[in-house]
Amino acid sequence: MRFANRLQAATARNNSLLCVGLDPDTRRFPKHLGSDPSAIVEFNRQIIEATIDLACCYKPNLGFYMAYGAAGLTALAETCAIIDHRVPVLLDAKVGDINTTSEAYARGYFEELDVDAVTVHPYMGLDSIEPFLKYEDRGAFILIKTSNPGSKDVQDLRLAGSEERPLYEHVAAQANAWNARYGNCGLVVGATWPGELSAIRATCPNLSILVPGVGTQGGDLEAAVQAGLDAQGAGILVNSSRGIIYAGSGEDFARASRRVALELRDRMNAVRTASDPA
Amino acid sequence: MRFANRLQAATARNNSLLCVGLDPDTRRFPKHLGSDPSAIVEFNRQIIEATIDLACCYKPNLGFYMAYGAAGLTALAETCAIIDHRVPVLLDAKVGDINTTSEAYARGYFEELDVDAVTVHPYMGLDSIEPFLKYEDRGAFILIKTSNPGSKDVQDLRLAGSEERPLYEHVAAQANAWNARYGNCGLVVGATWPGELSAIRATCPNLSILVPGVGTQGGDLEAAVQAGLDAQGAGILVNSSRGIIYAGSGEDFARASRRVALELRDRMNAVRTASDPA
Repeated sequence: MRFANRLQAATARNNSLLCVGLDPDTRRFPKHLGSDPSAIVEFNRQIIEATIDLACCYKPNLGFYMAYGAAGLTALAETCAIIDHRVPVLLDAKVGDINTTSEAYARGYFEELDVDAVTVHPYMGLDSIEPFLKYEDRGAFILIKTSNPGSKDVQDLRLAGSEERPLYEHVAAQANAWNARYGNCGLVVGATWPGELSAIRATCPNLSILVPGVGTQGGDLEAAVQAGLDAQGAGILVNSSRGIIYAGSGEDFARASRRVALELRDRMNAVRTASDPA
Repeated sequence: MRFANRLQAATARNNSLLCVGLDPDTRRFPKHLGSDPSAIVEFNRQIIEATIDLACCYKPNLGFYMAYGAAGLTALAETCAIIDHRVPVLLDAKVGDINTTSEAYARGYFEELDVDAVTVHPYMGLDSIEPFLKYEDRGAFILIKTSNPGSKDVQDLRLAGSEERPLYEHVAAQANAWNARYGNCGLVVGATWPGELSAIRATCPNLSILVPGVGTQGGDLEAAVQAGLDAQGAGILVNSSRGIIYAGSGEDFARASRRVALELRDRMNAVRTASDPA
């Protein structure tokens, strides 16, 4: 089954566009779990079991595991095993290298870790992304306009041509063309840029868009959902990491996470209902 | 001590601009080592001991370790321990994420793994690279014009303005400005583009440039060295991975690796001598 279909199935089953970011930082863990890297698995397990019926996707960010070296990567593998394909896993690895190296990463992420999709950098071009796209049942989400302030440094540069369109629009158009060929491209557009998100949705009507940056990073949830929804009232994965996983700090932290996840999901669904032309 | 100084010291001590790429693929290992991920450490150990007096840097590419999951990352840590700072280690991780995530990666790479430098993607802008630059004694090599054919897709796009200069030239100028502030930026420019390398060296006279892509990827060694040398006849790390590490296939494979490394080093030094104005 295609990644897009697995995502649609999870969205339908849980009535959810919410992506839960699993970005463990042991320094922020509830005291009773301790701060050893081995606590990561227990922390993630409780978050997952408290939100598995509310999420359309889980997004572990590789950086928060690499911070702990091999122990972190082991914790990531155990986290994926806990999710056990009940909901798709999008590994936020922001990967991109020459062809043979991307093939090595793809083996590690799609075969060893067995995640459903990854995020990729576009700077090195199609041949750096193709090794991921060749796994027909997996997905590759291409960075277009990222949520951080520094995204202006390169992504907003204007290209030569009568329209002088920004680089990120060109990359979005490329991704749309690559998707026509491979069928498993997605996009990454920060919730902090609803105007840009709306323009990108117009250019790429059928692509799934990962939308990070609500919550701690300051993106407006309702504006982002409104801007990103496709014609079917779906097509986006709106990610919240810190806002959900650090909602509580006591022994019942996962209950607080569930409360926030439920609220985010329902607020997004309210926008979907209001936008529904039917 | 600054990364640039450690690199200069290794270059002077070993009279070398050669960077040895440690990109293990167990499928290509000499038969007697076996193909278990645990063979990676023994393979690397023999390559390292056979070349440690010929290299100015070692460059493990993270992808070839991530291909084996946590076992691969453990092998990478053991490889770094074998090198034990005798020669600097540049981790080719091609990393780049929002600020807090790049901080997590920096902890993993600079504190846990304790490598001397990393490669970074520029697409997300300065705030995605800054967490690495804040480690004053480490380095961050920014992708400018990569060795792969697909580098044309994004890096060669022409920017608006009277000169219509390509994106990679703009990024090189940005990197030069960032270096003025932090002092520890390097660049990555493929040996497959000697004309572009020469133009980038003119724009960035004082930055270290990692030059991958000689050998298997088809870059001309002499042309690349000629194009990349700085005014002191140094300033480049010319990388060869597969050409060196798979030079032999028998029990004496490391001897074959040494032979190729020595030849590459001496060919580069011949260009340096011929270019020396003195």
